Amino acid sequence: MKGNRLELVTIGDELLLGFTIDTNAAHIARALGEIGFEIVRRSTVGDSAGDIAAAVGDALSRTGAVITTGGLGPTSDDLTKASIAELFGRKMVMDENLLREVEARWNRLWPGRHFPAPNRQQAEIPEGAEIIPNAHGSAPGIRLEDDAGRWVAMLPGVPREMRGMLGEQIIPRLKSRAGGTVILSKTLRTAGIGESAIAEVLGANPLDGVPSAAMLALAFLPSALGVDLRVTVRGLLREDSEEILAAAALKLRERIEAYVYGEGDADLAESVLALCRSRRLTVAVAESCTGGMLGQRLTAVPGSSDVFRGGIIAYDNQVKEQLLGVDHATIAENGAVSVETAAAMASGARQRLGASVGIGITGIAGPGGGTAEKPVGTVCVAIDGDGITSARSLRLIGDREEIRQRSAQSALDMLRRALITV
Amino acid sequence: MKGNRLELVTIGDELLLGFTIDTNAAHIARALGEIGFEIVRRSTVGDSAGDIAAAVGDALSRTGAVITTGGLGPTSDDLTKASIAELFGRKMVMDENLLREVEARWNRLWPGRHFPAPNRQQAEIPEGAEIIPNAHGSAPGIRLEDDAGRWVAMLPGVPREMRGMLGEQIIPRLKSRAGGTVILSKTLRTAGIGESAIAEVLGANPLDGVPSAAMLALAFLPSALGVDLRVTVRGLLREDSEEILAAAALKLRERIEAYVYGEGDADLAESVLALCRSRRLTVAVAESCTGGMLGQRLTAVPGSSDVFRGGIIAYDNQVKEQLLGVDHATIAENGAVSVETAAAMASGARQRLGASVGIGITGIAGPGGGTAEKPVGTVCVAIDGDGITSARSLRLIGDREEIRQRSAQSALDMLRRALITV
Repeated sequence: MKGNRLELVTIGDELLLGFTIDTNAAHIARALGEIGFEIVRRSTVGDSAGDIAAAVGDALSRTGAVITTGGLGPTSDDLTKASIAELFGRKMVMDENLLREVEARWNRLWPGRHFPAPNRQQAEIPEGAEIIPNAHGSAPGIRLEDDAGRWVAMLPGVPREMRGMLGEQIIPRLKSRAGGTVILSKTLRTAGIGESAIAEVLGANPLDGVPSAAMLALAFLPSALGVDLRVTVRGLLREDSEEILAAAALKLRERIEAYVYGEGDADLAESVLALCRSRRLTVAVAESCTGGMLGQRLTAVPGSSDVFRGGIIAYDNQVKEQLLGVDHATIAENGAVSVETAAAMASGARQRLGASVGIGITGIAGPGGGTAEKPVGTVCVAIDGDGITSARSLRLIGDREEIRQRSAQSALDMLRRALITV
Repeated sequence: MKGNRLELVTIGDELLLGFTIDTNAAHIARALGEIGFEIVRRSTVGDSAGDIAAAVGDALSRTGAVITTGGLGPTSDDLTKASIAELFGRKMVMDENLLREVEARWNRLWPGRHFPAPNRQQAEIPEGAEIIPNAHGSAPGIRLEDDAGRWVAMLPGVPREMRGMLGEQIIPRLKSRAGGTVILSKTLRTAGIGESAIAEVLGANPLDGVPSAAMLALAFLPSALGVDLRVTVRGLLREDSEEILAAAALKLRERIEAYVYGEGDADLAESVLALCRSRRLTVAVAESCTGGMLGQRLTAVPGSSDVFRGGIIAYDNQVKEQLLGVDHATIAENGAVSVETAAAMASGARQRLGASVGIGITGIAGPGGGTAEKPVGTVCVAIDGDGITSARSLRLIGDREEIRQRSAQSALDMLRRALITV
């Protein structure tokens, strides 16, 4: 193994044909980065013994350390063990202990059914290989090392099994020999400001003054949920990296604090629920173009029931009038997509559901329904509550799904900002 | 180019570090498979000129045909063009036409602002290279071919730009030289039946009797939305492949027709809306544990407003009583999670929103709230309408999000089946 450098070989026709997206690769890279190991190249090959051996051989010649995923199951497609055994010049041998385990597992899952002969293959391992236990499925992992210290760790392709084994078996082994430096990142999540506006607020060298600023990389990651700012540091010790990232986050927050709703995997709905909870507020929603998405976002958070009371999906204008009490005249004069209707919907939801705050969303998500005056992407959001009443008309970009996501996120951000300023 | 075999090299530190999941690779593989080209190996390298050149060089030596994504932008990280030019022994030269286009684009986007010198780099191309127009962004693609006919096509990494250029520029070029055989697949989407039950219904050799059955691969793909069955055929002409896949789909449908709600990317919500539309039915929902997800699913479909009237998100029991008219006694006697409450919610939604059919969902999505009698995953769904009244209690597996997805899907499937049998 050269330094803390590895290669990854992901195996499977499904991956290569594009029927499955390779999420394992990203997971492994992030998990290894956090303990200072770097994937320097990744290859994907199909279920072909020759291609597997060639890719693993190439990778070994470069780094001497390879992790593979996939091809460990019991079927004829599963060629990883045998092809890598051949690459190492090892025979396949039956491991009697493993055979007993595989049979026992079969008998537990299918009591009374005959153990099929082909499944014995699962207990064959390359001579001299080490078995990596799999607490999450039937196919164990395999680790093979040659006299020169070059090694391959073979993990299953099923993400749940792979993740479990990586965390429980591979990471602890690597950690014990880690050289010390790591790859770490920290993400600030923002809403309510675009990528170019945030770049302008931050200026040309936003991290100037942070220790080791030259070792930091800042990425802008826009999505329908807002712009994430990710700072990454590579090649420093964990403790130093964490300190520098904290300083970098602080520096960025100085200029954009109002837009930041959280760090890492933070969810805006969760932030809003926490703000409401601490102020003993309850929330109800009235949704037109989002059709339930805002309620879905809020209820995706476990324990949301102490804040969220429910809502009314008023897709039809009659429903806006009958169930939310929006005046017929409000809609007739201003249109169903207007700040006036959004405000009346928010107020109706608050009153009808007995909540402290109501949120209203009405808009044109497209692809049809736009006009010259109110094109697709015109969305009005409103909040109505004690001292935090507000309504805005927005022009959102993207396809139907993105416009709906931006609508729900904008409404949540409107409430978040109202709450932090009162 | 050897046969219809290519390699793909995806470029970028973000990919290699696992911060971005490589969806481009799967998209390219599927699009090429459909015209009979096969990606035989895929490699991912970081933003390093040496690594890019090495990976592309290795790939060229195997197949003589390589597509790359990423590293074509204007910043110092973008090294693809220059490193591949060096691999081919070509100098970088300024393309004056391209420079004018890049400047013109800048002036359109940022009128009055000075064109920055570093951006001139975008107009530099390897000597003798062909420019692949990019109608979706600023960085054009580049195609380089040597005297031996070995070629590299470089595409940008931004998915929207890459997809546009692949479809408009690369696919048509390849198609004109395609050898004839293709990789095609067909997917049947099922709901309301588990993976092992479907395997049992289909038996050991479900495709027996289909022409060229030995060339077909059948995959079972379970998710929170149900089990997809995908049949893939490789190595035959397009017309033959399509015929065989149609026969295979028919054969599978013979045994599982009742569970199949569509093919390919079919969406169950869309199927249900179409069934309702053809029967002139309107729909309203009453959601507890799904909190709006069912409404969101239905309104994700453009044009759903002629069928979907809206709904009530009754997260709180008071809301179930006050807005849906569920009897206090129904909840007190049977519990909020019961077929009785679900049926009363469905009926309440139908009446209060003036729809022909109401759908009710109430359940325990977890992680908290489970009891011995009603553990996490207990979900009751009901439909209420003229002649199609039904209610069921389900035990669903997965985490909170999966249980909610399975709940919405189960409710939709209940309505679909009721509609196709009346």
